[in-house]
Amino acid sequence: MTPTVGVIGGGQLARMMIPAAVALGIDLRVFAENAGASAALAATMVGDYRDAGAVLAFAQSVDVVTFDHEHVPQEILRELVEAGVAVRPGPDALLYAQDKLLMRERLSALGLPVPDWARVTTEDEIAAFLADHGGRGVLKTPRGGYDGKGVRVITDASHAAEWIDGDELLVEELVEFRRELAQLVARRPSGEIVAWPLVESVQRDGVCAEVLAPAPRSAGKLAEVASDIAHSIAEQLDVTGVLAVELFETSDERVLVNELAMRPHNTGHWSIDGSTTSQFEQHLRAVLDLPLGATGCRDNWSVMVNVLGGPATGTLADRYPTAFADQPTVKVHNYGKAPRPGRKIGHVTAGGEDLDDVVWQARSAAALLGTVVVDDQNT
Amino acid sequence: MTPTVGVIGGGQLARMMIPAAVALGIDLRVFAENAGASAALAATMVGDYRDAGAVLAFAQSVDVVTFDHEHVPQEILRELVEAGVAVRPGPDALLYAQDKLLMRERLSALGLPVPDWARVTTEDEIAAFLADHGGRGVLKTPRGGYDGKGVRVITDASHAAEWIDGDELLVEELVEFRRELAQLVARRPSGEIVAWPLVESVQRDGVCAEVLAPAPRSAGKLAEVASDIAHSIAEQLDVTGVLAVELFETSDERVLVNELAMRPHNTGHWSIDGSTTSQFEQHLRAVLDLPLGATGCRDNWSVMVNVLGGPATGTLADRYPTAFADQPTVKVHNYGKAPRPGRKIGHVTAGGEDLDDVVWQARSAAALLGTVVVDDQNT
Repeated sequence: MTPTVGVIGGGQLARMMIPAAVALGIDLRVFAENAGASAALAATMVGDYRDAGAVLAFAQSVDVVTFDHEHVPQEILRELVEAGVAVRPGPDALLYAQDKLLMRERLSALGLPVPDWARVTTEDEIAAFLADHGGRGVLKTPRGGYDGKGVRVITDASHAAEWIDGDELLVEELVEFRRELAQLVARRPSGEIVAWPLVESVQRDGVCAEVLAPAPRSAGKLAEVASDIAHSIAEQLDVTGVLAVELFETSDERVLVNELAMRPHNTGHWSIDGSTTSQFEQHLRAVLDLPLGATGCRDNWSVMVNVLGGPATGTLADRYPTAFADQPTVKVHNYGKAPRPGRKIGHVTAGGEDLDDVVWQARSAAALLGTVVVDDQNT
Repeated sequence: MTPTVGVIGGGQLARMMIPAAVALGIDLRVFAENAGASAALAATMVGDYRDAGAVLAFAQSVDVVTFDHEHVPQEILRELVEAGVAVRPGPDALLYAQDKLLMRERLSALGLPVPDWARVTTEDEIAAFLADHGGRGVLKTPRGGYDGKGVRVITDASHAAEWIDGDELLVEELVEFRRELAQLVARRPSGEIVAWPLVESVQRDGVCAEVLAPAPRSAGKLAEVASDIAHSIAEQLDVTGVLAVELFETSDERVLVNELAMRPHNTGHWSIDGSTTSQFEQHLRAVLDLPLGATGCRDNWSVMVNVLGGPATGTLADRYPTAFADQPTVKVHNYGKAPRPGRKIGHVTAGGEDLDDVVWQARSAAALLGTVVVDDQNT
């Protein structure tokens, strides 16, 4: 039979599953939040992912349900499972991508390396934590954080005042890190796990800006430690599909888990052009419990740069004549979103032998595509 | 603005344009022959490509019209042009992909190397041609030939009897060739042309079975000659989009043009996984008059093998557990067609350093996917 995969959420992650689904002859169906969603081409239903009836109706039209985001409420996920729907990753795993406090608690219990953290509800508790950690910390709301929202650095408990409302917050040590890394793996229900090479992720303003694959100077022990951590999490949390583990490489030579995502992730976009199997194809294979594909690098170096912003009027495609002529080797991925300052509307990937060349190509293309120019006629 | 490309024909070539269109944010619209066509996901209209009214209505919804096949009648193509539609390639070029007699005549006039040929209508004319060419020849109907249909080897004029009906036929010398090659180029209206590496195409029973990219032992003069021929044809015939030139490398060291196709072609499928820019992305860039992408090989060797046949019951995907487990590095392309003996329902591509390994991987995967087994429970 033709395998049918349902994706809840119609953003760019669902969109980037479409090419893989077309190649493999998988019937991909997207439950989108609106008709103009990034993954509109595969949308078979438009609705609210918090509407249990709509989500259940959608789920019953597919072989397996997976996700573009982690916002579907646990009650609905559990209702799907009770109705006999294959939900991958399942609610018991997804919980730890939805709630940072539960994630910290669980990873700590598993003995996995995480920053020092505490569960807090009052300014006094926060003040005590800061006092123990050099007067600095990172305050996080356990749920709903994304790309820097719901996360803030604090140096005084009073900075937390507006977030304190009786609900639990997470406070963590402000990690002094050399750099951020990400380890992606994929796991399928029958247990097979494969790992992509460890990558370096460069953040700007709390948003992923660039990814270098593989992470420079990561051969040997560092890659092994990162891969072991991701394998443990995937197995212990029974994750199915792609798992992205964002990591800190600290100044004092530790590797700590920062965040988890149980879906294709921005730090894996390089794999579309740079790995034998892209994270999107792999996610589809994994949730369908098919044997996983090879995860090696196709080039010495792959560099992904996000395209933020775009032309003040018109669409990203208006920039193609300039960008394509300038960088004929760079692969462009357009999310079909209206440009606006700071918005992630696409990414580019370059690959090759020399890291400096590859970085330059990818950054040049991203700048030509993304720079916000008010009078775009002059570009 | 979002560029909109209309494709007439909903076969696997249109289907394989979808991933490229998704990546580049191009609005791809397909005029399909039926609702279950290979490219159904992008189908916005279902109709008959010989229905001028329907084709015109479709064409007026897009920025540029291009093709999955060369069967749209000249009258309709010319009507589109008169109505102001951008048709790429245009009717004056497409004519030579539609009519083999006109093609032979035109290429001969341009001084390009072709097999000896003659325009014939009677058995006597055929007999005279055979007498001049060692008693052997290839008889072709000028129009409608595809994958070995409309082509037959003859050793006696009487073999032509059932094709003779007063219409003109093409008879050609039976070329003694070492191997078949294909040179693909892409050209855009403003004149830019890029060429992929010359490839070797292995035919079985008149159908393309395998493609090796680049063609072994093709460095230097051979590649130069092939590229020059394809450049000349693209320029002289004013081709836009992808042009595939099928070539014979003869036993007496000549390179002769066999067939032309003015669209993505089976001999270019390797480029999806094996070249920096796939023929499908390039075709979209070219027909939109965007700067063309780099055409280098991503691996030392890429080998494409067609998947013919498939499971006697069920779909190609039923073979994935076995094929994926056996060949984790091979890329599978499923055309979404019902399997039946001899039918081309997909292709696979492998890439790597060692040609023998790569051939073995691709053939193994294609055999696991395509072999016709009546009782599929036992595979």
